[in-house]
Amino acid sequence: MLYSSNAVEAAIEALSKLPGIGRKSAQRLVFFLLKVPRPEVETLAAALVALKEKVRHCSRCFNITEADPCPICTNPQRDSRTICVVEEANDVLALEKTGEYHGLYHVLGGALSPLDGIGPENLKVRELMLRLQNGVAEIILATNPTAEGEATAIYLANLIRPLGPRLSRIARGIPVGGDLEYADEITLTRALEGRVQW
Amino acid sequence: MLYSSNAVEAAIEALSKLPGIGRKSAQRLVFFLLKVPRPEVETLAAALVALKEKVRHCSRCFNITEADPCPICTNPQRDSRTICVVEEANDVLALEKTGEYHGLYHVLGGALSPLDGIGPENLKVRELMLRLQNGVAEIILATNPTAEGEATAIYLANLIRPLGPRLSRIARGIPVGGDLEYADEITLTRALEGRVQW
Repeated sequence: MLYSSNAVEAAIEALSKLPGIGRKSAQRLVFFLLKVPRPEVETLAAALVALKEKVRHCSRCFNITEADPCPICTNPQRDSRTICVVEEANDVLALEKTGEYHGLYHVLGGALSPLDGIGPENLKVRELMLRLQNGVAEIILATNPTAEGEATAIYLANLIRPLGPRLSRIARGIPVGGDLEYADEITLTRALEGRVQW
Repeated sequence: MLYSSNAVEAAIEALSKLPGIGRKSAQRLVFFLLKVPRPEVETLAAALVALKEKVRHCSRCFNITEADPCPICTNPQRDSRTICVVEEANDVLALEKTGEYHGLYHVLGGALSPLDGIGPENLKVRELMLRLQNGVAEIILATNPTAEGEATAIYLANLIRPLGPRLSRIARGIPVGGDLEYADEITLTRALEGRVQW
Protein backbone atom coordinates (compact mmCIF):
# COMPACT_ATOMS: atom_id res chain seq x y z
CA MET A 1 0.00 0.00 0.00
CA LEU A 2 1.53 3.26 -1.13
CA TYR A 3 -0.31 5.41 1.36
CA SER A 4 -0.34 4.48 5.00
CA SER A 5 -4.04 5.43 5.05
CA ASN A 6 -7.00 4.29 2.95
CA ALA A 7 -8.85 7.51 3.75
CA VAL A 8 -6.01 9.54 2.22
CA GLU A 9 -5.99 7.33 -0.86
CA ALA A 10 -9.80 7.62 -1.22
CA ALA A 11 -9.72 11.42 -0.89
CA ILE A 12 -6.90 11.74 -3.46
CA GLU A 13 -8.84 9.46 -5.80
CA ALA A 14 -12.05 11.52 -5.43
CA LEU A 15 -10.34 14.91 -5.80
CA SER A 16 -8.32 13.91 -8.85
CA LYS A 17 -11.57 13.31 -10.75
CA LEU A 18 -12.22 17.06 -10.73
CA PRO A 19 -11.27 18.98 -13.89
CA GLY A 20 -7.83 20.57 -13.81
CA ILE A 21 -6.83 18.59 -10.71
CA GLY A 22 -4.33 15.82 -11.36
CA ARG A 23 -3.07 13.24 -8.89
CA LYS A 24 -0.29 15.51 -7.70
CA SER A 25 -2.59 18.48 -7.06
CA ALA A 26 -5.10 16.18 -5.33
CA GLN A 27 -2.32 14.95 -3.08
CA ARG A 28 -1.37 18.53 -2.21
CA LEU A 29 -5.00 19.36 -1.45
CA VAL A 30 -5.35 16.31 0.81
CA PHE A 31 -2.25 17.22 2.81
CA PHE A 32 -3.60 20.74 3.12
CA LEU A 33 -6.99 19.45 4.33
CA LEU A 34 -5.27 17.23 6.90
CA LYS A 35 -3.84 20.39 8.49
CA VAL A 36 -7.04 22.44 8.40
CA PRO A 37 -9.44 22.41 11.40
CA ARG A 38 -12.13 19.76 11.05
CA PRO A 39 -15.16 22.13 10.94
CA GLU A 40 -13.73 23.80 7.82
CA VAL A 41 -13.52 20.49 5.98
CA GLU A 42 -17.03 19.63 7.10
CA THR A 43 -18.28 22.97 5.79
CA LEU A 44 -16.69 22.24 2.43
CA ALA A 45 -18.18 18.73 2.28
CA ALA A 46 -21.63 20.02 3.27
CA ALA A 47 -21.44 22.79 0.65
CA LEU A 48 -20.75 20.22 -2.07
CA VAL A 49 -23.65 18.00 -1.01
CA ALA A 50 -25.97 21.03 -0.72
CA LEU A 51 -25.04 21.90 -4.29
CA LYS A 52 -26.64 18.70 -5.55
CA GLU A 53 -29.53 18.86 -3.09
CA LYS A 54 -30.68 22.43 -3.67
CA VAL A 55 -29.60 23.48 -7.13
CA ARG A 56 -31.68 22.54 -10.16
CA HIS A 57 -32.49 24.02 -13.54
CA CYS A 58 -35.15 26.68 -14.08
CA SER A 59 -37.93 25.12 -16.14
CA ARG A 60 -38.17 28.28 -18.27
CA CYS A 61 -34.63 29.44 -18.98
CA PHE A 62 -32.63 26.35 -17.79
CA ASN A 63 -30.31 28.52 -15.74
CA ILE A 64 -29.28 26.99 -12.40
CA THR A 65 -31.52 28.02 -9.53
CA GLU A 66 -32.83 27.01 -6.12
CA ALA A 67 -36.38 28.22 -6.86
CA ASP A 68 -38.27 27.26 -10.01
CA PRO A 69 -38.85 29.50 -11.99
CA CYS A 70 -35.58 31.25 -11.24
CA PRO A 71 -35.31 34.77 -9.72
CA ILE A 72 -34.35 36.22 -13.11
CA CYS A 73 -37.41 34.77 -14.90
CA THR A 74 -39.79 35.93 -12.13
CA ASN A 75 -38.25 39.39 -11.65
CA PRO A 76 -40.99 41.83 -12.85
CA GLN A 77 -38.36 44.54 -13.39
CA ARG A 78 -36.63 42.58 -16.12
CA ASP A 79 -37.64 42.97 -19.75
CA SER A 80 -39.38 39.69 -20.58
CA ARG A 81 -39.48 40.57 -24.28
CA THR A 82 -35.69 40.19 -24.69
CA ILE A 83 -33.99 36.81 -24.45
CA CYS A 84 -30.24 36.32 -24.42
CA VAL A 85 -29.27 32.82 -25.59
CA VAL A 86 -26.11 31.39 -23.99
CA GLU A 87 -24.40 28.02 -23.95
CA GLU A 88 -23.94 27.42 -20.22
CA ALA A 89 -25.16 28.68 -16.85
CA ASN A 90 -21.77 30.26 -16.12
CA ASP A 91 -22.27 32.49 -19.16
CA VAL A 92 -25.35 33.91 -17.41
CA LEU A 93 -23.14 34.65 -14.44
CA ALA A 94 -20.59 36.45 -16.61
CA LEU A 95 -23.29 38.57 -18.26
CA GLU A 96 -25.02 39.37 -14.95
CA LYS A 97 -21.72 40.65 -13.58
CA THR A 98 -21.72 43.40 -16.23
CA GLY A 99 -24.97 44.75 -14.77
CA GLU A 100 -25.78 45.95 -18.30
CA TYR A 101 -28.35 43.39 -19.36
CA HIS A 102 -31.90 43.53 -18.05
CA GLY A 103 -33.70 40.95 -20.17
CA LEU A 104 -34.14 37.21 -19.66
CA TYR A 105 -31.86 34.33 -20.58
CA HIS A 106 -32.06 30.96 -22.28
CA VAL A 107 -29.38 28.42 -21.43
CA LEU A 108 -28.91 25.90 -24.25
CA GLY A 109 -26.78 23.51 -22.19
CA GLY A 110 -23.94 23.43 -24.72
CA ALA A 111 -23.27 24.13 -28.40
CA LEU A 112 -23.81 22.14 -31.59
CA SER A 113 -20.89 19.79 -32.09
CA PRO A 114 -21.48 17.00 -34.61
CA LEU A 115 -18.08 15.46 -33.82
CA ASP A 116 -19.14 14.98 -30.20
CA GLY A 117 -22.60 13.81 -31.29
CA ILE A 118 -24.30 16.95 -29.95
CA GLY A 119 -27.19 17.94 -32.22
CA PRO A 120 -30.10 20.38 -31.71
CA GLU A 121 -32.06 17.64 -29.92
CA ASN A 122 -29.39 17.56 -27.18
CA LEU A 123 -29.76 21.30 -26.54
CA LYS A 124 -32.74 23.29 -25.24
CA VAL A 125 -33.58 24.46 -28.77
CA ARG A 126 -37.19 23.23 -28.83
CA GLU A 127 -37.78 24.94 -25.48
CA LEU A 128 -36.40 28.19 -26.89
CA MET A 129 -38.74 28.00 -29.89
CA LEU A 130 -41.69 27.47 -27.54
CA ARG A 131 -40.74 30.59 -25.58
CA LEU A 132 -40.74 32.61 -28.81
CA GLN A 133 -44.51 32.07 -29.09
CA ASN A 134 -45.07 34.42 -26.13
CA GLY A 135 -44.24 37.62 -28.00
CA VAL A 136 -40.46 38.02 -27.81
CA ALA A 137 -39.13 41.26 -29.34
CA GLU A 138 -35.38 40.55 -29.45
CA ILE A 139 -33.13 37.52 -29.34
CA ILE A 140 -29.44 38.12 -28.53
CA LEU A 141 -27.28 35.20 -29.64
CA ALA A 142 -24.49 35.11 -27.05
CA THR A 143 -22.99 31.69 -27.71
CA ASN A 144 -19.18 31.63 -27.58
CA PRO A 145 -17.23 32.92 -30.61
CA THR A 146 -15.82 29.41 -31.19
CA ALA A 147 -16.48 27.14 -34.19
CA GLU A 148 -19.25 25.35 -32.22
CA GLY A 149 -20.71 28.56 -30.78
CA GLU A 150 -20.79 30.25 -34.19
CA ALA A 151 -22.42 27.20 -35.79
CA THR A 152 -25.04 27.18 -33.04
CA ALA A 153 -25.72 30.90 -33.49
CA ILE A 154 -26.13 30.49 -37.27
CA TYR A 155 -28.39 27.46 -36.80
CA LEU A 156 -30.60 29.35 -34.32
CA ALA A 157 -30.65 32.48 -36.48
CA ASN A 158 -32.01 30.43 -39.40
CA LEU A 159 -34.72 28.97 -37.17
CA ILE A 160 -35.70 32.24 -35.49
CA ARG A 161 -35.49 34.74 -38.39
CA PRO A 162 -38.80 33.59 -40.05
CA LEU A 163 -40.62 34.08 -36.73
CA GLY A 164 -40.04 37.83 -36.70
CA PRO A 165 -38.13 38.89 -33.54
CA ARG A 166 -35.14 41.20 -33.83
CA LEU A 167 -31.96 39.09 -33.93
CA SER A 168 -28.49 40.12 -32.80
CA ARG A 169 -25.13 38.51 -32.16
CA ILE A 170 -22.70 39.74 -29.47
CA ALA A 171 -19.77 41.70 -30.92
CA ARG A 172 -16.55 39.88 -31.64
CA GLY A 173 -13.41 42.01 -31.67
CA ILE A 174 -10.32 43.04 -29.77
CA PRO A 175 -10.85 42.62 -26.02
CA VAL A 176 -10.62 45.82 -24.00
CA GLY A 177 -7.01 46.27 -22.87
CA GLY A 178 -5.90 44.02 -25.73
CA ASP A 179 -3.36 44.77 -28.41
CA LEU A 180 -3.95 44.73 -32.19
CA GLU A 181 -0.45 43.41 -32.71
CA TYR A 182 -1.21 40.23 -30.81
CA ALA A 183 -4.77 39.66 -32.04
CA ASP A 184 -5.27 36.72 -34.41
CA GLU A 185 -6.44 37.35 -37.99
CA ILE A 186 -9.99 36.11 -37.47
CA THR A 187 -10.57 38.31 -34.43
CA LEU A 188 -9.12 41.28 -36.33
CA THR A 189 -11.35 40.53 -39.33
CA ARG A 190 -14.40 40.39 -37.03
CA ALA A 191 -13.33 43.63 -35.34
CA LEU A 192 -13.18 45.35 -38.74
CA GLU A 193 -16.48 43.88 -39.93
CA GLY A 194 -18.17 44.90 -36.69
CA ARG A 195 -16.80 48.45 -36.61
CA VAL A 196 -19.16 51.03 -35.15
CA GLN A 197 -19.88 54.47 -36.64
CA TRP A 198 -18.41 57.27 -34.49
CA MET B 1 -27.16 38.70 -5.43
CA LEU B 2 -24.63 37.79 -8.09
CA TYR B 3 -25.47 34.09 -8.16
CA SER B 4 -29.03 32.96 -8.49
CA SER B 5 -28.28 30.31 -5.84
CA ASN B 6 -26.90 30.54 -2.30
CA ALA B 7 -25.72 26.93 -2.50
CA VAL B 8 -23.57 27.77 -5.53
CA GLU B 9 -22.14 30.82 -3.77
CA ALA B 10 -21.39 28.77 -0.62
CA ALA B 11 -19.67 26.01 -2.61
CA ILE B 12 -17.53 28.53 -4.55
CA GLU B 13 -16.63 30.22 -1.27
CA ALA B 14 -15.60 26.92 0.35
CA LEU B 15 -13.61 25.64 -2.66
CA SER B 16 -11.73 28.90 -3.19
CA LYS B 17 -10.20 28.51 0.28
CA LEU B 18 -8.18 25.55 -0.99
CA PRO B 19 -4.56 26.24 -2.00
CA GLY B 20 -4.06 26.92 -5.70
CA ILE B 21 -7.79 27.32 -6.29
CA GLY B 22 -8.91 30.89 -6.90
CA ARG B 23 -12.45 32.14 -7.27
CA LYS B 24 -12.48 31.47 -11.00
CA SER B 25 -11.27 27.87 -10.65
CA ALA B 26 -13.74 27.31 -7.80
CA GLN B 27 -16.52 28.55 -10.08
CA ARG B 28 -15.44 26.14 -12.81
CA LEU B 29 -15.35 23.26 -10.32
CA VAL B 30 -18.84 24.09 -9.06
CA PHE B 31 -20.30 24.15 -12.56
CA PHE B 32 -18.58 20.84 -13.20
CA LEU B 33 -20.02 19.34 -10.01
CA LEU B 34 -23.49 20.55 -10.96
CA LYS B 35 -23.29 18.36 -14.07
CA VAL B 36 -21.87 15.28 -12.35
CA PRO B 37 -24.23 12.56 -10.99
CA ARG B 38 -25.13 13.15 -7.35
CA PRO B 39 -23.55 9.94 -5.93
CA GLU B 40 -20.14 11.05 -7.22
CA VAL B 41 -20.36 14.36 -5.38
CA GLU B 42 -21.49 12.55 -2.24
CA THR B 43 -18.52 10.19 -2.52
CA LEU B 44 -16.20 13.17 -2.73
CA ALA B 45 -17.82 14.89 0.27
CA ALA B 46 -17.71 11.69 2.33
CA ALA B 47 -14.04 11.13 1.44
CA LEU B 48 -13.17 14.61 2.71
CA VAL B 49 -15.01 14.10 6.00
CA ALA B 50 -13.47 10.62 6.43
CA LEU B 51 -10.07 12.23 6.05
CA LYS B 52 -10.58 14.22 9.24
CA GLU B 53 -12.35 11.38 11.02
CA LYS B 54 -9.88 8.57 10.39
CA VAL B 55 -6.49 10.11 9.75
CA ARG B 56 -4.27 11.13 12.66
CA HIS B 57 -0.57 11.31 13.41
CA CYS B 58 1.51 8.33 14.46
CA SER B 59 2.64 8.93 18.05
CA ARG B 60 6.15 7.65 17.20
CA CYS B 61 7.07 9.09 13.81
CA PHE B 62 4.26 11.69 13.36
CA ASN B 63 3.50 10.45 9.87
CA ILE B 64 -0.21 10.42 8.99
CA THR B 65 -1.90 7.11 9.72
CA GLU B 66 -5.20 5.44 10.52
CA ALA B 67 -3.66 3.08 13.11
CA ASP B 68 -1.35 4.27 15.90
CA PRO B 69 1.54 3.39 15.75
CA CYS B 70 1.58 3.56 11.95
CA PRO B 71 2.16 0.52 9.69
CA ILE B 72 5.71 1.68 8.94
CA CYS B 73 6.69 1.92 12.63
CA THR B 74 5.18 -1.49 13.43
CA ASN B 75 6.51 -3.31 10.35
CA PRO B 76 9.03 -5.87 11.70
CA GLN B 77 10.72 -6.08 8.28
CA ARG B 78 11.84 -2.47 8.42
CA ASP B 79 15.18 -1.48 9.89
CA SER B 80 14.29 0.23 13.16
CA ARG B 81 17.87 1.41 13.64
CA THR B 82 17.71 3.88 10.74
CA ILE B 83 15.56 7.02 10.92
CA CYS B 84 14.96 9.33 7.98
CA VAL B 85 14.00 12.85 9.14
CA VAL B 86 11.63 14.73 6.81
CA GLU B 87 9.65 17.96 7.01
CA GLU B 88 6.17 16.78 6.06
CA ALA B 89 4.09 13.61 5.72
CA ASN B 90 4.05 13.95 1.93
CA ASP B 91 7.83 13.65 1.96
CA VAL B 92 7.39 10.17 3.46
CA LEU B 93 5.08 9.37 0.56
CA ALA B 94 7.66 10.55 -1.99
CA LEU B 95 10.41 8.46 -0.36
CA GLU B 96 8.19 5.37 -0.05
CA LYS B 97 7.46 5.56 -3.77
CA THR B 98 11.14 4.96 -4.51
CA GLY B 99 10.89 1.59 -2.75
CA GLU B 100 14.57 2.04 -1.85
CA TYR B 101 14.30 2.97 1.79
CA HIS B 102 13.56 0.34 4.42
CA GLY B 103 14.13 2.21 7.67
CA LEU B 104 11.75 4.32 9.76
CA TYR B 105 10.79 7.98 9.45
CA HIS B 106 10.44 11.01 11.65
CA VAL B 107 8.15 13.79 10.43
CA LEU B 108 9.14 17.18 11.91
CA GLY B 109 5.96 18.94 10.83
CA GLY B 110 7.83 21.74 9.04
CA ALA B 111 11.22 23.41 8.97
CA LEU B 112 12.88 26.06 11.10
CA SER B 113 11.81 29.48 9.90
CA PRO B 114 12.49 32.34 12.33
CA LEU B 115 10.73 34.82 10.02
CA ASP B 116 7.51 32.81 10.34
CA GLY B 117 8.10 32.32 14.05
CA ILE B 118 8.79 28.59 13.68
CA GLY B 119 11.46 27.49 16.14
CA PRO B 120 12.58 24.01 17.29
CA GLU B 121 9.78 23.97 19.90
CA ASN B 122 7.20 24.09 17.05
CA LEU B 123 8.69 21.02 15.39
CA LYS B 124 8.90 17.42 16.64
CA VAL B 125 12.58 17.87 17.59
CA ARG B 126 12.27 16.85 21.25
CA GLU B 127 10.40 13.70 20.16
CA LEU B 128 13.21 12.89 17.71
CA MET B 129 15.83 13.24 20.45
CA LEU B 130 13.81 10.88 22.67
CA ARG B 131 13.75 8.26 19.91
CA LEU B 132 17.54 8.44 19.66
CA GLN B 133 17.81 6.95 23.16
CA ASN B 134 16.62 3.58 21.80
CA GLY B 135 19.81 2.74 19.94
CA VAL B 136 19.57 4.37 16.54
CA ALA B 137 22.47 3.60 14.16
CA GLU B 138 21.88 6.15 11.37
CA ILE B 139 19.98 9.39 10.94
CA ILE B 140 19.31 10.54 7.38
CA LEU B 141 18.51 14.25 7.22
CA ALA B 142 16.05 14.52 4.33
CA THR B 143 14.66 18.01 4.88
CA ASN B 144 14.19 20.01 1.68
CA PRO B 145 17.28 21.64 0.10
CA THR B 146 15.78 25.11 0.74
CA ALA B 147 17.14 27.76 3.08
CA GLU B 148 14.76 26.58 5.84
CA GLY B 149 15.38 22.90 5.19
CA GLU B 150 19.16 23.34 5.20
CA ALA B 151 19.02 25.36 8.42
CA THR B 152 16.89 22.63 10.02
CA ALA B 153 19.32 19.92 8.88
CA ILE B 154 22.32 21.85 10.27
CA TYR B 155 20.49 22.50 13.55
CA LEU B 156 19.60 18.81 13.94
CA ALA B 157 23.11 17.67 12.95
CA ASN B 158 24.58 19.79 15.75
CA LEU B 159 22.15 18.26 18.24
CA ILE B 160 22.56 14.67 17.10
CA ARG B 161 26.33 14.46 16.37
CA PRO B 162 27.38 14.31 20.08
CA LEU B 163 24.98 11.38 20.60
CA GLY B 164 26.93 9.10 18.28
CA PRO B 165 24.69 7.83 15.44
CA ARG B 166 25.91 7.98 11.85
CA LEU B 167 24.60 11.18 10.23
CA SER B 168 23.89 11.75 6.55
CA ARG B 169 22.21 14.35 4.36
CA ILE B 170 20.41 13.46 1.11
CA ALA B 171 22.42 14.39 -1.99
CA ARG B 172 21.79 17.73 -3.64
CA GLY B 173 22.68 17.95 -7.31
CA ILE B 174 21.35 17.98 -10.85
CA PRO B 175 18.01 16.13 -11.05
CA VAL B 176 18.03 13.04 -13.26
CA GLY B 177 17.01 14.11 -16.78
CA GLY B 178 18.08 17.66 -15.97
CA ASP B 179 20.53 19.83 -17.86
CA LEU B 180 23.73 21.41 -16.48
CA GLU B 181 23.15 24.43 -18.67
CA TYR B 182 19.92 25.28 -16.89
CA ALA B 183 20.97 24.38 -13.34
CA ASP B 184 21.45 27.30 -10.94
CA GLU B 185 24.88 28.00 -9.47
CA ILE B 186 24.08 26.71 -5.98
CA THR B 187 22.76 23.40 -7.27
CA LEU B 188 25.81 23.04 -9.51
CA THR B 189 28.13 23.85 -6.58
CA ARG B 190 26.38 21.19 -4.47
CA ALA B 191 26.62 18.71 -7.36
CA LEU B 192 30.38 19.28 -7.55
CA GLU B 193 30.87 19.12 -3.77
CA GLY B 194 28.82 15.92 -3.59
CA ARG B 195 30.58 14.18 -6.51
CA VAL B 196 30.95 10.43 -6.09
CA GLN B 197 34.09 8.42 -6.85
CA TRP B 198 33.66 6.23 -9.97
